[in-house]
Amino acid sequence: MEVIPHWLTKQAYLAPEQVAIETEDGQMITFLKLQQMSESFAKKLAHLGITDKSHVGILSTNDPLMVVAIHALSYIGATCVLLNTRLTKNELNFQVTDAQISLILTNDDMYDHVRAMQFEVPTYSFSYVDTLKEKASVLKDELHLNDVFTIMYTSGTTGLPKGVVHTYGNHWWSAIGSALNLGLNRNDKWLAPLPLFHVSGLSICIRSVIYGIPIYLLKKFDAKIVHQAIMKKGVTIASVVTVMLQRLLDRLKGARYPSSFRCMLLGGGPCPQTTLEQAKLKHIPVFQSYGMTETASQIVTLSPKDALSKLGSAGKPLFPGQLMIKHPDDQGVGEIFVKGPMVTKGYYRRDEENNRLFQDGWLATGDLGYLDQEGFLYVIDRRDDLIISGGENIYPSEIESVLSEITEIKEVGVVGKKDETWGEVPVAFVVPKVKTLTKSYINTYGRKFLASYKIPKDIYFVDQLPRNATNKLKRHVLMDWVHKKN
Amino acid sequence: MEVIPHWLTKQAYLAPEQVAIETEDGQMITFLKLQQMSESFAKKLAHLGITDKSHVGILSTNDPLMVVAIHALSYIGATCVLLNTRLTKNELNFQVTDAQISLILTNDDMYDHVRAMQFEVPTYSFSYVDTLKEKASVLKDELHLNDVFTIMYTSGTTGLPKGVVHTYGNHWWSAIGSALNLGLNRNDKWLAPLPLFHVSGLSICIRSVIYGIPIYLLKKFDAKIVHQAIMKKGVTIASVVTVMLQRLLDRLKGARYPSSFRCMLLGGGPCPQTTLEQAKLKHIPVFQSYGMTETASQIVTLSPKDALSKLGSAGKPLFPGQLMIKHPDDQGVGEIFVKGPMVTKGYYRRDEENNRLFQDGWLATGDLGYLDQEGFLYVIDRRDDLIISGGENIYPSEIESVLSEITEIKEVGVVGKKDETWGEVPVAFVVPKVKTLTKSYINTYGRKFLASYKIPKDIYFVDQLPRNATNKLKRHVLMDWVHKKN
Repeated sequence: MEVIPHWLTKQAYLAPEQVAIETEDGQMITFLKLQQMSESFAKKLAHLGITDKSHVGILSTNDPLMVVAIHALSYIGATCVLLNTRLTKNELNFQVTDAQISLILTNDDMYDHVRAMQFEVPTYSFSYVDTLKEKASVLKDELHLNDVFTIMYTSGTTGLPKGVVHTYGNHWWSAIGSALNLGLNRNDKWLAPLPLFHVSGLSICIRSVIYGIPIYLLKKFDAKIVHQAIMKKGVTIASVVTVMLQRLLDRLKGARYPSSFRCMLLGGGPCPQTTLEQAKLKHIPVFQSYGMTETASQIVTLSPKDALSKLGSAGKPLFPGQLMIKHPDDQGVGEIFVKGPMVTKGYYRRDEENNRLFQDGWLATGDLGYLDQEGFLYVIDRRDDLIISGGENIYPSEIESVLSEITEIKEVGVVGKKDETWGEVPVAFVVPKVKTLTKSYINTYGRKFLASYKIPKDIYFVDQLPRNATNKLKRHVLMDWVHKKN
Repeated sequence: MEVIPHWLTKQAYLAPEQVAIETEDGQMITFLKLQQMSESFAKKLAHLGITDKSHVGILSTNDPLMVVAIHALSYIGATCVLLNTRLTKNELNFQVTDAQISLILTNDDMYDHVRAMQFEVPTYSFSYVDTLKEKASVLKDELHLNDVFTIMYTSGTTGLPKGVVHTYGNHWWSAIGSALNLGLNRNDKWLAPLPLFHVSGLSICIRSVIYGIPIYLLKKFDAKIVHQAIMKKGVTIASVVTVMLQRLLDRLKGARYPSSFRCMLLGGGPCPQTTLEQAKLKHIPVFQSYGMTETASQIVTLSPKDALSKLGSAGKPLFPGQLMIKHPDDQGVGEIFVKGPMVTKGYYRRDEENNRLFQDGWLATGDLGYLDQEGFLYVIDRRDDLIISGGENIYPSEIESVLSEITEIKEVGVVGKKDETWGEVPVAFVVPKVKTLTKSYINTYGRKFLASYKIPKDIYFVDQLPRNATNKLKRHVLMDWVHKKN
């Protein structure tokens, strides 16, 4: 098991005065300050009884104090469970129980909202914890790369979300793989308009500390602010999803980003060809990528130099990563398997699934794709029936299982529908038991249990659902139906 | 144990057409070509019976085929023992036996010289092996970071050289630590005027493959060729030792290196302050460093921005490395201990020494130093009595044990003497048994057993050697004597 110095302590020692976090309202936190704040916060958490055995939930919109809290947990050696702020109480409750969380931390913006949810475990705001006394405690000065650092939930085909366990090593190797791919300049500044509770956002925090570069942290995506940051704030790399890129393209109009802006890292699902072509016309260095929570962010990336000749490809796997297409058909299409030290070792307390999905270090992604002759990956179908909407993953089965609880519904099938803004949105086919069932009734019920981005944007009443001989829902027929209706 | 794809196979896949090796006579080998040559060479070695259990010696001056052979051994999984071409037959014989080498490979330039030494194991030239048939064999497509890759000998205080064992992981982490420190640009080209049988040279080959950048490989250091390479060949980084830097300074005169030349990485012992000041005046971005074979190249580096304010410091330990001063005295001076995933796990078949020198992952370097308030390392005395001459390590005890075999010598003590060209050179104090003993007789004898750089540059005949109460040689008194004689 490899051991490295604690990455924040190390960076605070190497570059104490370097800016670690810069915010849209002009706040600047150096690595030394970030270390001091994080160590102090760790000792205050210790006062609350948090130890290296604790699982602590963080339910926060982007906030420098959220970064402090995450690092503080690493100083204690506690496990940090990152919770999606858009989820309903029911969705969160499942994760709180499943991840065995003993305490939830929130930022001030979220505090009232979270308090109202009345979780069974204590909930404190970062600023409340900050008022506590520090408890004398031994903080970690080293990180063991095999130790668990974070858990993040991702939905699955079964409908039950699974906690993806990331070790320090997973995050470390992901950061190194990205640096070997994109290079590393002393003047880099990485813009994070993505939520830190997703791996796409969190990974920027980790890279910041390992590379010794600032993260330009936004509360949330705002095209105007991102545009300004790229134009005037020295941002050199930005992580975005397709809908963000599209809004930025609209805002850019005829202007051009500074030449020091060297990478628009595009993740979170497929991107329409027209968007890529527009970006090319506007000289935006778009790096398409393929990744998932399980791979601790991008594991396959396409550089701009190949963007045009390999349109639609996600690129090649990053240096420490490997990729394999298993059981390819005549056209070379098969299931995508990934392997590498950035790939999670498994889901939290899901032995059966872990045994099934992980073989000899290879993870079955469930996605379908093929490699061209030069080894570029083309993803042709996302895992099972995954819907990706504005970068958020949605599993139809999760929506189906909630809506089928409505007594007036006989059965329900959900699929994704193409959407100009979000890429895809979920739509539902419902076989009602009673004629009086209305769409608004279904949606009102759904909102109690499902995050808003999971609420079907269209509901179609039908007489029956297409099923095969073994009674399995033929989702591709539903997709054809959607196609015909639009 | 972490597993990564074979680094050369991976880079040949990521950047097949990128140049991997460029030589002074204009030869260019791409990563794809280098992979093909190395895999083919591996299959020819398999034909000779080389397996993953074999230890193969490489005794070669810098040569692209040497790089091919090194990678070929990694494809087989064999251990590569890098032998110093400047050693005598006696010195080499010890290493061949100690490292359990079954075969020696040389380049054409060295072949006749090596053949004449008549080793007990077979010796083949790279070009002979190249004429052999390929044996169908399964080559490694992955590297296990804990597996042994290379062994390199370093002398020690006991006089018996020890084989430093490097795993793939040691080399990998060293390369990553360097990238995190120096950054990584797509247009980098790293000049290697240092022998590849030393870790300072070999590490450039490894970085080249991991970063996907060319190594500009020189047969040997030649100030004119290095100057030209930096001025005209797009070299951005060069690894040198002090004597090389001094010769380059002489040659540079009033000219200036291109701004794209971003790093002169200076290793292999201390550098006079005047040389550093001259380099500064000539705008050369010198990065001083501290490292040893055991740390798989630099583990502490000082960047140019700190060069003036921290004159004489070796800098701070690279990201994955740690440093500790043990048992400091009142002035904070103590023995330097290092730790990190780039540090060797031990010497080959030296259990007693390994148990003594390695504690909880920390290696006792034997060097003395202190950290200033900001954590910059100052090395004030090299381990024990180590003499560093033009980047080569020399242990007095090794010379003493050879010369004391001369029957006309009663006792002998060796120390280093400051030298303008080489930094230090060894000199000997000899107590003769007979008055007729001459310096030339001693040197003629010495040359049979010692590499030429170890032959004492001065020999002083004395009546007795200064010893303490327990009869231990007081080497510091000898140093004073040298000082008075000059």
